[in-house]
Amino acid sequence: MSETLRRLADVIESRKLANGGDPATSYVAKLFSKGDDAILKKIGEEAAETIMAAKDARVSGDSSKVLYECADLWFHSMVMLAHFGLKPQDVLNELARREGLSGLEEKAARPADA
Amino acid sequence: MSETLRRLADVIESRKLANGGDPATSYVAKLFSKGDDAILKKIGEEAAETIMAAKDARVSGDSSKVLYECADLWFHSMVMLAHFGLKPQDVLNELARREGLSGLEEKAARPADA
Amino acid sequence: MSETLRRLADVIESRKLANGGDPATSYVAKLFSKGDDAILKKIGEEAAETIMAAKDARVSGDSSKVLYECADLWFHSMVMLAHFGLKPQDVLNELARREGLSGLEEKAARPADA
Amino acid sequence: MSETLRRLADVIESRKLANGGDPATSYVAKLFSKGDDAILKKIGEEAAETIMAAKDARVSGDSSKVLYECADLWFHSMVMLAHFGLKPQDVLNELARREGLSGLEEKAARPADA
Repeated sequence: MSETLRRLADVIESRKLANGGDPATSYVAKLFSKGDDAILKKIGEEAAETIMAAKDARVSGDSSKVLYECADLWFHSMVMLAHFGLKPQDVLNELARREGLSGLEEKAARPADA
Repeated sequence: MSETLRRLADVIESRKLANGGDPATSYVAKLFSKGDDAILKKIGEEAAETIMAAKDARVSGDSSKVLYECADLWFHSMVMLAHFGLKPQDVLNELARREGLSGLEEKAARPADA
Repeated sequence: MSETLRRLADVIESRKLANGGDPATSYVAKLFSKGDDAILKKIGEEAAETIMAAKDARVSGDSSKVLYECADLWFHSMVMLAHFGLKPQDVLNELARREGLSGLEEKAARPADA
Repeated sequence: MSETLRRLADVIESRKLANGGDPATSYVAKLFSKGDDAILKKIGEEAAETIMAAKDARVSGDSSKVLYECADLWFHSMVMLAHFGLKPQDVLNELARREGLSGLEEKAARPADA
């Protein structure tokens, strides 16, 4: 796996209250202490900000904000994964599984996207 | 970088119309052909589905759907990145930069999150 | 209450399967038949489309798409309300209650928005 | 139109900076002063909170939180409408137009939803 994702996942894990994370000094520990809805709300927020950044990039020609907001979205996804006992490697495995099974086009065949 | 992310980014890149992607047979090529709003709408949709899957996981005790929807969210993020000329490695670099600069807690200090 | 909201709520109500709504011919009946997640996903989708329309309006100077997407958002909110046994009048009552209680600024005082 | 929506729209209008709204004392004036992205981000946030409240309601059997979050979503939609020079009556007119033109089922026929 990506060394960055692994390191990041380790730091996030260390911020869990059970692992000594302190909501008073750590943003991630504070999110963990607030619980499910605070973490999931961030997913919605960062998705909205990513969409806005992409619309802005089309006007400005500068896509750096898209990158920045996508990093925020992935970061908070990783906080959510940790909160549900999952790891980024699990997501990568799932992505690899789909590619292996039937190629990237698998998704097109799923009824939910019909 | 993660081998999976790299391979996935390569396949997505190959689905661009300029690279021979065919909207008639490829889900990703079809998204590219529809353009910005279709791709960004998927970010909103997959964020909503991730949130719902997480709420369901709290009731069912089964977090596999969270994993599945998070994979969908990351996958469509990668389609968006490609559409804006970016790569997953750019996102990983940004995440590593933040960690290096000031630790994961940098975000807590950002005014926008105050 | 607004005559339009009342009429719309009545039509939506009539599309419930228990009231004879037919998923084969009615978009709303089809949503009801799909259940919670299909309806809630539309809330996420229409919110994303409203955000994109507003960004576009800043560039084009034409806000008609904002209006159109906001109508979609309110319409699907009303389908959700009906699905949970609620009516638009309940939402209006809640909005009126807040205004009456403490003025529109009540929200500013809520800890969750601090 | 609904008296509540009209009164609410008037109060929101009065919070515009050009109309004397004060960001130091008014939540709505503060949103206006922050501009497009702050207002649009609230649409994304409130949509996410509505989705979470609806999922919770299925477990608890209490739909009052759905009502509360839907009121938040409509309220912030109205702030957005005002910010783009629109009124809730415009949304109601659009909803009435659709119903008049072709019935509520019009939407089902739109290619974007195919």
